[in-house]
Amino acid sequence: MSLKRSPLAPKRFPTLPPIAGVSFATAACGIKYKGRTDVCLMVMDAGSTVAGVLTRSKTASAPVDWCRQQLPHGRARAIIVNSGNANAFTGKTGETSVRRVVEAVAASLGCRRQDVLAASTGVIGQPLPTEKFVQAVQALPKKLKADGLKDAAAAIMTTDTYPKGAVRRTEIGGKPVTIAGIAKGSGMIAPDMATMLSFVFTDARLPATVLQTLLREGVDKSFNCITVDGDTSTSDTLLMGATGKAKHPRISEPRDPRLAEFRAALDDLLSDLAQQVVRDGEGAGKFITIKVRGAASQRGARRIGLAIANSPLVKTAIAGEDANWGRIVMAVGKSGERADRDRLGIAIGGVQVAAEGEVVPGYDEAPVAQHMKGSEIDIEVDIGIGRGQATVWTCDLTHGYISINADYRS
Amino acid sequence: MSLKRSPLAPKRFPTLPPIAGVSFATAACGIKYKGRTDVCLMVMDAGSTVAGVLTRSKTASAPVDWCRQQLPHGRARAIIVNSGNANAFTGKTGETSVRRVVEAVAASLGCRRQDVLAASTGVIGQPLPTEKFVQAVQALPKKLKADGLKDAAAAIMTTDTYPKGAVRRTEIGGKPVTIAGIAKGSGMIAPDMATMLSFVFTDARLPATVLQTLLREGVDKSFNCITVDGDTSTSDTLLMGATGKAKHPRISEPRDPRLAEFRAALDDLLSDLAQQVVRDGEGAGKFITIKVRGAASQRGARRIGLAIANSPLVKTAIAGEDANWGRIVMAVGKSGERADRDRLGIAIGGVQVAAEGEVVPGYDEAPVAQHMKGSEIDIEVDIGIGRGQATVWTCDLTHGYISINADYRS
Repeated sequence: MSLKRSPLAPKRFPTLPPIAGVSFATAACGIKYKGRTDVCLMVMDAGSTVAGVLTRSKTASAPVDWCRQQLPHGRARAIIVNSGNANAFTGKTGETSVRRVVEAVAASLGCRRQDVLAASTGVIGQPLPTEKFVQAVQALPKKLKADGLKDAAAAIMTTDTYPKGAVRRTEIGGKPVTIAGIAKGSGMIAPDMATMLSFVFTDARLPATVLQTLLREGVDKSFNCITVDGDTSTSDTLLMGATGKAKHPRISEPRDPRLAEFRAALDDLLSDLAQQVVRDGEGAGKFITIKVRGAASQRGARRIGLAIANSPLVKTAIAGEDANWGRIVMAVGKSGERADRDRLGIAIGGVQVAAEGEVVPGYDEAPVAQHMKGSEIDIEVDIGIGRGQATVWTCDLTHGYISINADYRS
Repeated sequence: MSLKRSPLAPKRFPTLPPIAGVSFATAACGIKYKGRTDVCLMVMDAGSTVAGVLTRSKTASAPVDWCRQQLPHGRARAIIVNSGNANAFTGKTGETSVRRVVEAVAASLGCRRQDVLAASTGVIGQPLPTEKFVQAVQALPKKLKADGLKDAAAAIMTTDTYPKGAVRRTEIGGKPVTIAGIAKGSGMIAPDMATMLSFVFTDARLPATVLQTLLREGVDKSFNCITVDGDTSTSDTLLMGATGKAKHPRISEPRDPRLAEFRAALDDLLSDLAQQVVRDGEGAGKFITIKVRGAASQRGARRIGLAIANSPLVKTAIAGEDANWGRIVMAVGKSGERADRDRLGIAIGGVQVAAEGEVVPGYDEAPVAQHMKGSEIDIEVDIGIGRGQATVWTCDLTHGYISINADYRS
């Protein structure tokens, strides 16, 4: 199935500079797709640290299980990724496949297998063609190149209509540091996890524990605040490697004030990647930003935001360019979070629609209807009972989503 | 918008016999729809008891609030219902509307206003045209007739494509008792509540406390086990009236063994109505039964069943007649309930597809693919860790749902 580039796609892919100490190689292995790359090897210099966030699904894939075992070491030399097959729900066969692929990578690089992480994305429940994959892996090391992150972004795509990348230049203790990352979507996207696959690299020199804290906190405000369809993947994996090549002062704990710039840059990059995933949501025609304030807690605000963002009735109304704010009221009500109907306020496109539990006097729908015709929809909800706030990003639910998913596997 | 009758609709509307002590009248009041009835009055003889189950939405409608106040009395003489406007998120104006309508009904029948219950269904956030409604109410009492339940089923419809009714003849203590009910859907249907609107009447003579227990238990196995789109309405209301005209022995508590037949008949009728709602789910092309067993608890089994039933990816795969069981695995994983991937088993259309965490050896997709072409889809999931079981009913997610909801209000 060939998909048209999302109308919400960024104008261009950013220029991703090399990150000192990381290189990339891709191959067309034919796992599922024809005529495109589907395998990617990412190699980091010895001494690199690693952090990761994995799906909370109870039916996680074999590579996710492997990463969960290895991540506590905090060290990695390589990440091997394939698209087209998730190696999920494949039992012992799946575990063996991961082990064989990882061992092949370790042998070809001369490192320990526990220093090789793995990620797979694609169809669930079909055995990975392990031999083919292992053969492809053996040819990858000699193809490694420092400026291969864009190629990597293309190799990990499934139903994505464009590759996703972002870069931020920042500093730690006055010394320049770069962060670059890629991600892929674009269905089975729901929060409480990382996105399906994302890989971020930096030349910063940070202990794995510090990296893990920064990553976890950044994910909570980015990937955990997006949803396309409310369906959590078996394969969600976000890995971040730090090569330590930058010449900044030694940092030993995540609260170090010298990390302020780096933290802000990382948060910004993660939000950028997460929003790119939403902008490529299956069938998406509109990008929707939902700001919730006045909730009982921050967590409550996010849950209300996600209840709105996951509501099929809200998403279809927006697809139909209908300012049907009653459905937003419904979604607030069903979220299960504390709310007082008679304090609720709603604004769409900056225009106050409802306040204190009813439509505002003399409400003029014309400017709101105009806003609904655009491709960037802004919804603000004031719960009116507390100080909790959160921002959630999603897309509309269109005929395109149905078409893509009613015959994805067949 | 005129909708084609759902392909899953029952062959015919059942013949609903009069229930001694109840009568019905309908009118075309023009609240929103043209050329059809949209108001319905249901009147019960003095001495009738009443029970009800209401939405748990935090943004419940004004008539739901009214019912919540009155239901504890356990007595009712009348129920006044309108379609086309939900009188939800209408603030103080909405409360005043309910009070005026209820007072008009009470005056025309010569009863107390607290003996009049109310329900509204339709668009959220628009004031109810109260004057028009009150005028229509005044003409209703002289139109009351005992065999008007079918007309009532038609008057309460919104995007429903057919009226929904069911009847069961049973006995208490050897004496004949009848139960008849109606319901309407068909979007914004999700569990943890009653359906949008349903009204059930019986000639049994039961205290309100007994009726409430039987109704609550029956709802847990019927209306709380269905979902169309996971969106919980602001207006969900299920009311059940008992006129006490049947000549059975006095019953004073819900565990009375003489209630066994009646309880079974009520459960069966509620399941029938709930399934009729699903069969008229917006855009539905297939009726899906999901049986979960082997979960840690009954509650867990229902949550897993609903995670599958609410998954857009599962629902679109079924719409596309694709036996994509990997998406069922995903939905089990995201439910948050206890599960062990390596014990999970799945059968579709009675054919074992996966067992102990992977596809069964020599799996032949042909009979499953054949089953997927039908309009009744059966999915069985064995979690393999406990004894909890539940059955959940839903429908597929099709282009029809998008079409209906992208321009419902406009």
